[in-house]
Amino acid sequence: MTIQDRKAIPIPQVEERLPIPKQNLRVPGPTPIPPEIMEAQAAQMINHRGPEFSAIMKRVTPRLQYFFQTTAPVLTYPASGTGGQECAVVNVFSPGDHVVSVIIGNFGTRLAKIAEAYGLNVTKIEFPWGQAADPDVVANRLQQIAPYRGVLLTHNETSTGVTNDIQSLATVVRNDNPDALIVVDAVSSLGSLPLEMDPWDLDVVFTGSQKGWMIPPGIMMIAASERAWAAHKQSKLPRFYFDWSSARKQLEASWQHPTTPPVSLFYGLDVALEMMLKEGRANIFAHHAQAGEYVRNRVKALGLKLLADPRYASNTVTAILTPEGIETKALLTKLRKEDNIVLADGQDHMKGKIFRIGHLGYFTQEDLDEALNAVEHRLHELGFQG
Amino acid sequence: MTIQDRKAIPIPQVEERLPIPKQNLRVPGPTPIPPEIMEAQAAQMINHRGPEFSAIMKRVTPRLQYFFQTTAPVLTYPASGTGGQECAVVNVFSPGDHVVSVIIGNFGTRLAKIAEAYGLNVTKIEFPWGQAADPDVVANRLQQIAPYRGVLLTHNETSTGVTNDIQSLATVVRNDNPDALIVVDAVSSLGSLPLEMDPWDLDVVFTGSQKGWMIPPGIMMIAASERAWAAHKQSKLPRFYFDWSSARKQLEASWQHPTTPPVSLFYGLDVALEMMLKEGRANIFAHHAQAGEYVRNRVKALGLKLLADPRYASNTVTAILTPEGIETKALLTKLRKEDNIVLADGQDHMKGKIFRIGHLGYFTQEDLDEALNAVEHRLHELGFQG
Repeated sequence: MTIQDRKAIPIPQVEERLPIPKQNLRVPGPTPIPPEIMEAQAAQMINHRGPEFSAIMKRVTPRLQYFFQTTAPVLTYPASGTGGQECAVVNVFSPGDHVVSVIIGNFGTRLAKIAEAYGLNVTKIEFPWGQAADPDVVANRLQQIAPYRGVLLTHNETSTGVTNDIQSLATVVRNDNPDALIVVDAVSSLGSLPLEMDPWDLDVVFTGSQKGWMIPPGIMMIAASERAWAAHKQSKLPRFYFDWSSARKQLEASWQHPTTPPVSLFYGLDVALEMMLKEGRANIFAHHAQAGEYVRNRVKALGLKLLADPRYASNTVTAILTPEGIETKALLTKLRKEDNIVLADGQDHMKGKIFRIGHLGYFTQEDLDEALNAVEHRLHELGFQG
Repeated sequence: MTIQDRKAIPIPQVEERLPIPKQNLRVPGPTPIPPEIMEAQAAQMINHRGPEFSAIMKRVTPRLQYFFQTTAPVLTYPASGTGGQECAVVNVFSPGDHVVSVIIGNFGTRLAKIAEAYGLNVTKIEFPWGQAADPDVVANRLQQIAPYRGVLLTHNETSTGVTNDIQSLATVVRNDNPDALIVVDAVSSLGSLPLEMDPWDLDVVFTGSQKGWMIPPGIMMIAASERAWAAHKQSKLPRFYFDWSSARKQLEASWQHPTTPPVSLFYGLDVALEMMLKEGRANIFAHHAQAGEYVRNRVKALGLKLLADPRYASNTVTAILTPEGIETKALLTKLRKEDNIVLADGQDHMKGKIFRIGHLGYFTQEDLDEALNAVEHRLHELGFQG
């Protein structure tokens, strides 16, 4: 084909844009945005190389350190949570490194896939969906396998509504291998559930803006221990966009980023952190714990079964087994179309078998009640006899 | 150090948050946001796995194809323009591949650095800052070097205010090597300056939301020719986050993304593309061309010198040599503090030697006049005799 043969692309005909509907969005991220944050995001753009933007980073960074519970610099990237997974892997490992991936659901699987895509040698310790990683089982398995450079853990598994006991798992790893790099995916937990990066001796921790932080998706935050920074210096995996050194250098030199940050989302993050500090970390954790318990109790009272082992049920997302004879998709469509309530389907092999309710970030008791009442109503409408 | 020794991190004391100032933001991105787009972005979050989000992608994707002038799917990622550079490199090449990097400024240098970071063998064809890549020079050099797999080009070099003649450069490459992959960084040009991906037979083209698209930073858009997709299938560079296959699969299956997209920015992009189609591609190009010419003429009339070769001066950004005896930083600070006008400094070795005025995306004649009048006033105040 010669250049002349190519046809220009005509103006496409597309469907008309309708207003974004007002919904009770109860998926485990994106989460609803408080009005204060909405308003903050409507400010006009500023220069990401100027003092006004640096002032934002100067407020946001120590506050993120406080929520991470770390003295390490918290680096921020325009990326999704999956970007955090990749950023963690590429900055500390080298091709062929042996890592242990502790998998309890879909996001643990994804983290292992990323490690494999980058040429790491991955040993998987898998637990059935709905179970947490048992520290004793992990301890035994670690003793049986070849020397390893790192362990990949999920704090809160969004696909199953299970929260791992990271402190115990980290202790088990540290006892077995004091130099191991402990990588923790805290995308749907940090800021909502207790996680203590420095006190628990975690090496890499990352999260995403669209979860407990109450702002839209688009910012990924990540921090690394001194052990991880030392590993970073030796790491041979190729990287540029997610490279920690350039991000840290720019942050320390000028409270800025090596590339253009998502400015409007940082306006939101600035206000969100202010609101979160006003509420207090302990209070935030308490209200998530109450919400988790409330949702689980109401779900059980409806005669429904939870996917999660009750000892490790997540306080940010609850996964419910779709009762026999009910089609998950039909239930979710009814809730969305008739009640303006949006819940999430299962992922991977649990698609159609469970539905998930998010209770993290910005929500009220009324939001939870409205969603649960509608679930009860629509399930019975669809023939559920529970 | 034992776990018990670690201290918890106290609540940080930070400076008070001040309102975001109203400025005449005349940097080459982020660019000001029109009120319609601001308003659209204030809509509440929706499920990125639901039909409302798919409807946005179903409108946005063909309209992006129209602006790219390609039948190839346009993939979108939560990323900056640098993410686009990395996404282009990692999807089509393999370690050790020989690529030619045509460099006319800072962003061309960055693209070459990314190729090197990923283990490609890079031959650089460099032109002095302010010059465009001369197609005849490039043609001669290409004949003298070893066989190459691809050529990395910059359409509009934001650091120097120079626009390459991509059509001529692509023709030169294609004549020399019909199978070469032509990668074009169109971050600060696409949507503002003419670029015809399919008619010009370009293989990979990418851009960023914070430039001519009139929305905040955070979305990167990229498209690949059939030749590039064939190369993608063979490419051995490690990748996951920026992988094209998963993005295309999800787009074609459900008008969605493999990971969580920046929802609020897509609200903005949806409206921006509607506004851009209403204005018309030719009209958008014309008003950028007029703005470029107007700024250059006024700058020359002030007795200032342009960095760019006048034959290739950019219509989205103008780089001006700081007159002898004037400190760039002092000028820019005065403009920002006293006039609320924000211009950009030079980058790399041109920092302090030039200043840059952005004229892309959403701006009015008054914005340009206000900025240029203030530059005139403050330069004279600082002792400029021109």
